[in-house]
Amino acid sequence: MEVNASTLASGIDTVWVLLCAALVFFMEAGFAFLEAGFVQAKNSLNIVMKVFADSTLGMLSYFIIGFGIMFGLDRAGVFGSSGFMLSGELGHIQYRVPIYAFWLFQAAFAMAVASIVSGAVAERMKFAPYLVFTVLCTGLIYPLAGHWVWGANGWLMQLGMLDFAGSAVVHAVGGWSALAAVLVLGPRKEKYNSDGSINVIPAHNLHLAFLGTFILWFGWFGFNPGSSLSGLDMNIARIAVNTNLAAAAGGTTGALFTMFRWGKPDPSMAMNGALAGLAAVTGGCAFIAPASALAIGTVAGVLVVLAVSFFDRVKADDPVGAIAVHGVNGTWGALAVGIFAQDGGLVYGGGFHLLGVQALGVLAVSVWSFAATALVFMALKKLVGIRVSDQEEAEGLDLNEHGIPAYTGLVAPSMFGHGGGHSHPGPGLTPGMAGTMLYVEPGKH
Amino acid sequence: MEVNASTLASGIDTVWVLLCAALVFFMEAGFAFLEAGFVQAKNSLNIVMKVFADSTLGMLSYFIIGFGIMFGLDRAGVFGSSGFMLSGELGHIQYRVPIYAFWLFQAAFAMAVASIVSGAVAERMKFAPYLVFTVLCTGLIYPLAGHWVWGANGWLMQLGMLDFAGSAVVHAVGGWSALAAVLVLGPRKEKYNSDGSINVIPAHNLHLAFLGTFILWFGWFGFNPGSSLSGLDMNIARIAVNTNLAAAAGGTTGALFTMFRWGKPDPSMAMNGALAGLAAVTGGCAFIAPASALAIGTVAGVLVVLAVSFFDRVKADDPVGAIAVHGVNGTWGALAVGIFAQDGGLVYGGGFHLLGVQALGVLAVSVWSFAATALVFMALKKLVGIRVSDQEEAEGLDLNEHGIPAYTGLVAPSMFGHGGGHSHPGPGLTPGMAGTMLYVEPGKH
Amino acid sequence: MEVNASTLASGIDTVWVLLCAALVFFMEAGFAFLEAGFVQAKNSLNIVMKVFADSTLGMLSYFIIGFGIMFGLDRAGVFGSSGFMLSGELGHIQYRVPIYAFWLFQAAFAMAVASIVSGAVAERMKFAPYLVFTVLCTGLIYPLAGHWVWGANGWLMQLGMLDFAGSAVVHAVGGWSALAAVLVLGPRKEKYNSDGSINVIPAHNLHLAFLGTFILWFGWFGFNPGSSLSGLDMNIARIAVNTNLAAAAGGTTGALFTMFRWGKPDPSMAMNGALAGLAAVTGGCAFIAPASALAIGTVAGVLVVLAVSFFDRVKADDPVGAIAVHGVNGTWGALAVGIFAQDGGLVYGGGFHLLGVQALGVLAVSVWSFAATALVFMALKKLVGIRVSDQEEAEGLDLNEHGIPAYTGLVAPSMFGHGGGHSHPGPGLTPGMAGTMLYVEPGKH
Repeated sequence: MEVNASTLASGIDTVWVLLCAALVFFMEAGFAFLEAGFVQAKNSLNIVMKVFADSTLGMLSYFIIGFGIMFGLDRAGVFGSSGFMLSGELGHIQYRVPIYAFWLFQAAFAMAVASIVSGAVAERMKFAPYLVFTVLCTGLIYPLAGHWVWGANGWLMQLGMLDFAGSAVVHAVGGWSALAAVLVLGPRKEKYNSDGSINVIPAHNLHLAFLGTFILWFGWFGFNPGSSLSGLDMNIARIAVNTNLAAAAGGTTGALFTMFRWGKPDPSMAMNGALAGLAAVTGGCAFIAPASALAIGTVAGVLVVLAVSFFDRVKADDPVGAIAVHGVNGTWGALAVGIFAQDGGLVYGGGFHLLGVQALGVLAVSVWSFAATALVFMALKKLVGIRVSDQEEAEGLDLNEHGIPAYTGLVAPSMFGHGGGHSHPGPGLTPGMAGTMLYVEPGKH
Repeated sequence: MEVNASTLASGIDTVWVLLCAALVFFMEAGFAFLEAGFVQAKNSLNIVMKVFADSTLGMLSYFIIGFGIMFGLDRAGVFGSSGFMLSGELGHIQYRVPIYAFWLFQAAFAMAVASIVSGAVAERMKFAPYLVFTVLCTGLIYPLAGHWVWGANGWLMQLGMLDFAGSAVVHAVGGWSALAAVLVLGPRKEKYNSDGSINVIPAHNLHLAFLGTFILWFGWFGFNPGSSLSGLDMNIARIAVNTNLAAAAGGTTGALFTMFRWGKPDPSMAMNGALAGLAAVTGGCAFIAPASALAIGTVAGVLVVLAVSFFDRVKADDPVGAIAVHGVNGTWGALAVGIFAQDGGLVYGGGFHLLGVQALGVLAVSVWSFAATALVFMALKKLVGIRVSDQEEAEGLDLNEHGIPAYTGLVAPSMFGHGGGHSHPGPGLTPGMAGTMLYVEPGKH
Repeated sequence: MEVNASTLASGIDTVWVLLCAALVFFMEAGFAFLEAGFVQAKNSLNIVMKVFADSTLGMLSYFIIGFGIMFGLDRAGVFGSSGFMLSGELGHIQYRVPIYAFWLFQAAFAMAVASIVSGAVAERMKFAPYLVFTVLCTGLIYPLAGHWVWGANGWLMQLGMLDFAGSAVVHAVGGWSALAAVLVLGPRKEKYNSDGSINVIPAHNLHLAFLGTFILWFGWFGFNPGSSLSGLDMNIARIAVNTNLAAAAGGTTGALFTMFRWGKPDPSMAMNGALAGLAAVTGGCAFIAPASALAIGTVAGVLVVLAVSFFDRVKADDPVGAIAVHGVNGTWGALAVGIFAQDGGLVYGGGFHLLGVQALGVLAVSVWSFAATALVFMALKKLVGIRVSDQEEAEGLDLNEHGIPAYTGLVAPSMFGHGGGHSHPGPGLTPGMAGTMLYVEPGKH
């Protein structure tokens, strides 16, 4: 192969975008385990299956429909109309990376939007209608909003809206879509008592949730800096630093704010604080100074705590806090660009123009995603039903929807008195009774 | 340092290959947790120890012997004969990356083959003879097959066999090796009843299995595109897209096929479907169109479901489905190259020549790996024994082989009536009885 | 953008350093889960919260203070004095990557040092004083030692000390700091009996610990090779190979040594062996031959087993083995540079000069970190107290410090006789009693 400057530049950019796409794809594992950890054990497998459907069926839908609507040839600033199944006219997409690399990076973003919603509807939504939703979310709802801001000649792009890696396009769209879904679906049966009081339904496995959080943060090293689509854009280093500082500030605030308010630093809020900081800095990370990233993250860490408790009170039952993290803080992040952008931001003397555009933009994509999701959920509710029965909800979705629990026989060894360090089993452990399978299937005896 | 085009090209390629090697290495965690999640809790630590042995002892064996046999100076198209311990004649390996980078990438592949087998023999194979097997698998069985297809002047390479990242070399070799191991070893005691009926032994932790699946998929971003060994080969972007589309199609089919057949989408088959799609597209990902990747993955998602149940029926007891995922779908993937390759494939008018070569090639490496593994297992069975005793199997391999269970005291807090949100322990929780250790060691009271 | 050789070189280096920084950051997840898995369930959430504090508050402290002390303009070879909050004079830092990329990579190192200590003080240290420690560790204790070896004109650098990625600077500093912390804090109440005998407190979840180990190893692909700070330095490939060979040797030795000594390969020691190999090769990986990496790792795998049992006997109660892994083997690694360095090492005929410098260097940073940490812990002990009460320790830190256990309702499904494969719940599972929440909150009935 002949190696010249242009070839080399393409190589650097392609290596960068593909590895960042891998990191963003891995965020699906982050969503899966964050959400699974926050819900009850009996519904935790179902939620992972839904996120896995985003990663599989959702990717296919984005391949077949979504990408064309988002990045195809523009029609009236509203939608794209080519590039379905990666064929047809795509020559207007001009980067140094092959169109395949661009596509893969974008596909990983589309899955993320659906996975934001999956968490909010956990513990009571049926699996089959969720599949329909994920197809429509990755195929239409997200891509249309995306076209407005990131597509060639999208109307919000033409107005000058700035949303680098998607505080509005990804997080506000996902978060307000989640709110619509939750409102149509209704709260979990166990959540609110007849006297209006609220039950705390505890997270079943906070290590799983922390694993999800760490993976999401790790994936954000691809999500934000990768959105440059070029490894030769030296701003990627500042983007990465801003991303991390906002996460650090949000995570610190989430922990300390709960510590001062309730006496104990709350693990869920430490996690959600960091994620809120990440969602909020996503829109502006390329345009702001590190100190502004700290400010954005600090505000996000407080906002998310207040928002979780607000949505709880108004009976928008969101088991994982997706609306607070992505909806509220995606919106905050989109507005923060208007405040902190070094070119045009309020605090840099840019006046209110950019802030106004940002407000309009985030309002537009939020209203669209809220309305479209509400419509889809109402139609699905009418046509096929979206909630499992009360009995199924009480028994858990894992057994009812998938015929198997997430965990089986976890406690068998210690049930029979065996702990660490003992190599010789105790008298109770005879072949006839020790098998996990025998234990979990008592009916066979 | 002087920076010219050649230096820059080497830098790009080396960065690419090293980061892809990291991703492929991380697949060992994927194998470990996929397999651990699918087996019973009492044997789950043992299987992770075996995969960890692949990653440690297996790497040493590949360093000392395997790499030389695979990539050393060719003897008669059958084996390599230099490069042991990365010394001696290696000048025939010509890439822009240092030999060390090439070695590391290849070493991660060798571990993967052993780890495919580890899952199939789970829950009843002794640890010590497994160590012998992993040394022979990474040192001889895999490298010899690898030499035929990828080594300089290997006989299958000379025939024109195409196997980009190893549907045949890695997955068929690993999968059919697993079948041989399982047949010599025999099924788990609890698997088949005396009347011939089959017991379902449930997966103990499907979150752990999903974690493994996500990590494996993430690692495949390195496995397939990294096999280009160059970040300047712009085909890497299409390879990555093909890889992901096949995984998405396989995962979708695995879930939907079980949903239509048995009324519920099965989590294990969703996972194995995606992995089957990945194993199948590995051979052809560089040579095919995205639509062909979809076709390959779709077939793989059905094949794996049928194959799991077939091997179950013929008493080839494979607790994790490794034979179905890697053996069957690695073979399917090798053949699929002959069907879908844009240059020489059947559907592109290339006739049956390439397909014939592919069939011969995958047959050859499969027969070799099956026979060699059968021989090794039969020898080990005769010399030292390969199965734990019936009592040890009933009690679990973790306590018997490692003296410790995977989990200890998981349920202690809730045993005493404590759940989320409560900061004040209930009356039952006094210092004298609360400690996890006291709980798991009742003999001390 | 104009693309010339210099631009391209900066692009390659920046892509490399940012992606390596992502890998090193992800090691925080590795520390969190390794430590959580090794401790008792009742304290496992608290330890993750502490590591998360290292990742958030610790990053802020390094941003505000630490980086300036470590890499700012040198004062007398002892400390840096500029670059606080990434502002002020930083022109003496000359790499092809933006200062932001350099900062992010270094910040991830600083968190790691604090996270080494977090494990050793697990299961009895209060959360709030830990926050003070992490601020001081990432802001002062580590950066000062770091300045001596890596800062511009640090006094140990001037003496010729070699510590490529930090066997001394990171691992010995973290490990001996952990020893000081443990000695001031005292052992866990359950650890030693009044007759002086030692209790084994079993790890609560070895899968979580293995997950941590795999993530740490994966992260080390960034930690060591990334310390080149350049993707054009072709030595990165050998660094990566040396890193992996040492890990493989250490993991193998840790398992085999326990197998020959106690009859069973010990999972904890397999993990700690690999990590010890990694910690030990970190200092020399850029300067040695692969065979030397094998030697270093092999010794590390034995050393760590002996050291764990030594510190256990002298009542330095370290629940995760951090002192043995990082303190002992970081020190061994620093000395090993003097033995195996191809330029100046003892076995290459370099005499004792380099070895002497290495010994002085690792002694200096170890004494500093030990003394500084001891002082901080003694001050905190006096001012605010550093241990939870005996009752809190018995009940567990998770409930007392965070008001929530790590796991809730894990066993609910199987409690009622449900296992895998059954889609119809048994007779015991009625809506009134099945909910996890009802189960974990019996007081509500």
